[in-house]
Formats: sequence, C-alpha cells, structure tokens
Amino acid sequence: MSLDFTTWSCPLPLRDYPNVVIGHGGGGKLTAELIHHLFAPAFGDEALRQLGDAAVLALDGVRLAISTDSFVVRPLFFPGGSIGELAVNGTVNDLAMMGARPLYLTAGFIVEEGLPLSQLGAIVERMAAAARAAGVRVVAGDTKVVDKGHGDGVFINTTGVGLIPNGVRIGPDRARPGDCVLINGFIGDHGMAIMSVREGLQFETTIASDTAPLHDLVAAMLDVAPGAIHALRDPTRGGLAAALNEIAVASQVGIQIDERALPVHPDVQAACDLLGMDPIYVANEGKLVAFVAEEAAEAVLARMRAHPLGQGAAMIGRVVAQPAGLVTARTAIGGTRVIPMPLGEQLPRIC
Amino acid sequence: MSLDFTTWSCPLPLRDYPNVVIGHGGGGKLTAELIHHLFAPAFGDEALRQLGDAAVLALDGVRLAISTDSFVVRPLFFPGGSIGELAVNGTVNDLAMMGARPLYLTAGFIVEEGLPLSQLGAIVERMAAAARAAGVRVVAGDTKVVDKGHGDGVFINTTGVGLIPNGVRIGPDRARPGDCVLINGFIGDHGMAIMSVREGLQFETTIASDTAPLHDLVAAMLDVAPGAIHALRDPTRGGLAAALNEIAVASQVGIQIDERALPVHPDVQAACDLLGMDPIYVANEGKLVAFVAEEAAEAVLARMRAHPLGQGAAMIGRVVAQPAGLVTARTAIGGTRVIPMPLGEQLPRIC
Repeated sequence: MSLDFTTWSCPLPLRDYPNVVIGHGGGGKLTAELIHHLFAPAFGDEALRQLGDAAVLALDGVRLAISTDSFVVRPLFFPGGSIGELAVNGTVNDLAMMGARPLYLTAGFIVEEGLPLSQLGAIVERMAAAARAAGVRVVAGDTKVVDKGHGDGVFINTTGVGLIPNGVRIGPDRARPGDCVLINGFIGDHGMAIMSVREGLQFETTIASDTAPLHDLVAAMLDVAPGAIHALRDPTRGGLAAALNEIAVASQVGIQIDERALPVHPDVQAACDLLGMDPIYVANEGKLVAFVAEEAAEAVLARMRAHPLGQGAAMIGRVVAQPAGLVTARTAIGGTRVIPMPLGEQLPRIC
Repeated sequence: MSLDFTTWSCPLPLRDYPNVVIGHGGGGKLTAELIHHLFAPAFGDEALRQLGDAAVLALDGVRLAISTDSFVVRPLFFPGGSIGELAVNGTVNDLAMMGARPLYLTAGFIVEEGLPLSQLGAIVERMAAAARAAGVRVVAGDTKVVDKGHGDGVFINTTGVGLIPNGVRIGPDRARPGDCVLINGFIGDHGMAIMSVREGLQFETTIASDTAPLHDLVAAMLDVAPGAIHALRDPTRGGLAAALNEIAVASQVGIQIDERALPVHPDVQAACDLLGMDPIYVANEGKLVAFVAEEAAEAVLARMRAHPLGQGAAMIGRVVAQPAGLVTARTAIGGTRVIPMPLGEQLPRIC
C-alpha cells in the first residue's frame, strides 16, 4: 500500500473536513484543496485548470481575459478604502495579472435587509469612482436582498472582461530559472489596515489600505520589455507567501527571497510584531510580484519606480531550478528558512 | 410647484426608505427604484441604462452579451432542481434573451462556515451537469467563506459571456404595436415548487421547478424568422407581470393579455388559490415571453411547440400603441383589469 501524493496534502486532505471552515476561503492550502478536489474535477475546464488570476480565452480572433471575485470584507469601510474600491480594483488587478487591458465589469450585490440605503449609496459611489479612475465600464448589475441575519451588510461580486494585447504571453506557469522577482512597494498594508479597525484592535498609527488598480503599471512594464515579463501575481489573500508558492508550483521552479529586501512599512512591521504576525503572509490590494527575465530586470525596475504605484519597487529575489515548488528566504541573520503555503488565513474576510 | 414625474414613483420614492427592505430584491418597483435612483446615476453607463437582460457590447468586430446574476434561493434543494441548476440556467437565459449564444460562465461562491462539504459538492456537480447540458464552459471561479450566522449555506454568483450572431437585433425596447405575445409553456411552476417546500407549507401535489436553459429554443425561433423576434424576456422574479411591464415601459407600448390563454398547471392554480396568489406574479425559471411580428407569429409558435421546452407554447396577447407603458388583461368573465408592476415580491429568495 502506498500513499497517493498527487492528491494528498498536508496536514489533512479535504475529505477529513466534513464541513466548510473559514480557512477554505483563505487563499491558502485549504482553498487550493477545494479547487483541486471539488471544483476542478466537477467543471473540468481547461481554462479553470490553468489557475491564472483570470481565464484566457480566444474568441473570433481576440484574446479575452475573464475573472470573477466576490468581496466579503469586514468592516465595509476602513482606512484607505471600502468594499467598493476593493470590488473594482481587485478584479481589475486579476485581469492585469494576465497582461490584459480591463474593459468591462459586472457588479452583483447581495444586500442584507436593514442596511442603510445611505451606506449602500456611498459604497456604490466609491465603486463608480474607482471604475472611472481605472477606466473600466460597469456594464451589468444585479441586486438580491437576503433577510436580516442571513448576510452581513453587503457582499459584492465583480466579474471582469479584458482584452490581451497581441504578443503578450504572461502566465503563472511561465517563470523560469534566472528570472528576477520584483515587487512594486510595501507589503502588508491592506491586511493591517483592516486589522487596525477590527473590534478591540485600535493601533496608535494610521495604516491605510494600498487598494489601487495596477493595469496601468503593468502596461508601463510591458512597454519596456514585452517578452521579458513572464509571470505576474497580485499577493492578496495569503499575502506574498501564497503568491510566491502558487507561482513556484505552477512553474515548477524554486524561488529564493532575500528577507532583508522586502519593503515593509515600519508601522506595519510594528503592528505585526505586536500581534505575532509575519508581513509576508498579510494581504495586499495594490501590489504585484513580477517574474522578469534577468537581462530586462533593471530596466523594468526603473520603469516601475517612475510610476506612481511603483515608487517603492524592489528586487526581492530570484527564480532557481531546484527545489521545484519550494519558496525559501534568506533571513536577516544569514540563515535560510522555508516560506510554506499558508493553510488557511491569519485574518478572515480581508477582501 | 409641479411634481417631477420622471423620478417620482408610486407608492413611495426611494428616499423614504432609510434602509434596504426585502422588496428591494424582488424584481419589482422597489428594485427598479434602486436601479434608477442609485445604481444607474452612479455608474452612468450606456450599456447599464439599456436595462436588457444582458449588456450588449461591440468589441473588435464581435458583439458580446454580458450578464450577471446572484442566486440566494432557499432552500438550496427543491423539487425539480437546486441552486446549482438555477445559477447556470438563470444566467444562460439572460444571455439568450438578447439572442446570444452563451459561451462562458464564471462562478463565485460565498459559503457560510459550517456548510457540509458534501452539500457543496452536490451543488457544484449539479452546476457542472447543467453547464454541460447547456453547452457552456465554466472558465473562472472564486470562493469566499463567511463566518457562521453571516451567510446562509451558499450564495452563488454567475456571470455569463455570449456571442450575438450577425443580424440578430433583440432588445426590451423593440416591441411594436401589432406584435404577438408568445409564451413557451406553463407559468408559476418554479415559485410554487419553492413555496411547496418552505417550512409549514407542504402541499399534497408535486409541483416541480421548470428550471431549464432556453438558448436552444431561442436559436430555433430565430431560425424561423430572424428579424421577426423583436423582444424576449424570461419572467423570473416578479413573474410574467413584471416581465410584461418592463417591456411595456422600455418599448413605450401597451400590452393586452387574454387571461384565459395563460397556461397554468392545475396544481399550480390550486396552490395559488389556496394561498391567495396570482400565478402571473409567480417566478418562472424556464420560461420566456416573446414579442414577435404578426406575420411570423404562427410559424414561430409552431416551431416553439416542436421544441422540448416549448410544447405548451401559447399566444397570450398583443402589443398595442396605447396606453403606452400599461399592461392590461381581458379576464375570464369578459372584463378588463390592469396588471400593475409588483412593488416587491410575493415570495422572497425565490432565485
């Protein structure tokens, strides 16, 4: 008798959880198990199996990117943004991570009975402003109301459709040994901004969410070196750690990070220290990690730093051939540690 | 001082409700007020203002239809289907109502902590089977988990992308005086199937939901007379009454229905009588109402009756020029009554 390692995962396979737990929505191993054991086998679609941030589909000579995301963040308003900005920027960014130019969004609202209409109105206005800022059209919508006690204020689904320019080939499976790993700025801001306003956890500092639409930054990077951008990912749920692990597995490469190179705002680091959290696992909503061919990396980094959303850009590591699928970090004191995929989530309902 | 009738609506304008009520999700007047007073002014998009079942967008020479819908039906399983079939067929039908061939669906799940994984699995399998039956691909997905007591089992958003064939011009504003009003079968089955299993309301009869994908029926109708199908709508929330009122307002025409011609299953009629409900206001999930040029109506009706989903098709009324925006019915005893737009919903969380 032998273990089947293709379906086995640590610490527990899906079948040992009889019920859905919060961690199944955390973007970590438990979410991956749901996808691999439940959704992918049922739907069995090639586009779904690619596990990109958006599906890429050829239709009558155009390449469409399509992505969907539901937003359940709590509280609805937080320093630096609201569920409205997240719902627009989150889906815009999923399209941008495939190199697509975002065109259309749909918006589906599930509202809990009793939500003040003024709050709904404020959220919708923030969504509309975010859509205008990102240059995307909100073309279709839907509203459902659930009885009090069966929802939580408002949940928003946005689905985006974008157009992938000719010649752009970006995918989670395209990182190659030798690639440089770049990030466009401070990590952990969004997660700690949410944390700072959750009940009973008021910090003295003002940490604001980094929510922002990244497609213009991506377009600028592609202008510099269209063929050299191999993979992009926005490190949201599960933080940078989850994003790096996903790329390492999809591309079957190793990723070595230099912990001292990670840009972390001192306030975020202090808050993380206080709570015993690691910023590499904390969610971001306006960051991207890019895997760029070595010869183009300096030029791409310079272009990122010239963009308003990339002023704090840094090179944080390298792609290596072995061990495939593993992310490691060189620590501040010169050692090496493994950065595992998170199991569930440190902070539930962060987006 | 004069009343502004363009923004005024009976019985109460939006601003007099401080909070969201269940009726805002009912597909009736309150939903329309939310759209007109809150969503449309904020997003201000031309496609959104057309108020079709799906947005129609021209992109690099192709015409795309895009539609989004969230499903919050309770219970999750009911006679004739589950939230899984509804989530696929509902969005497929919204695309079909614009004459589009449905191609891609996205699926966003908001799961309540504690939902048995076996239930989630069964729902996903039913979704997948419905997608296969409808010939659409599920190309992207997302899962969020909310803490127990802040959701209700599972909510599902599906967003669909379809392709509108050349020459097809269908829209809610294209019904014309003289058009015949056709329906493809019995009304009220879905709503009464849900009602039959809601707590404390077990009927002796077995009424099953009519959930079905209608795009193949639409394609068959278009084959007969491509230019003669002016408008299509699937009478879901708010029933046939809401669908007819929406078309009457959008096309600025009157609609006269013959109440005796409405196909109602005897069990549904009996259940409605028992509960004091009118089947014309009860939701359907596998029905369409078509506005067809008079000269082609007989041929289209014959083709509908030859299709498995149109065996009970009937001509139920006519489009007239006046009074514009009003739906009237000739009753069984020879009188005439107005069929007003419903305010909220008779049956909350029906889809």
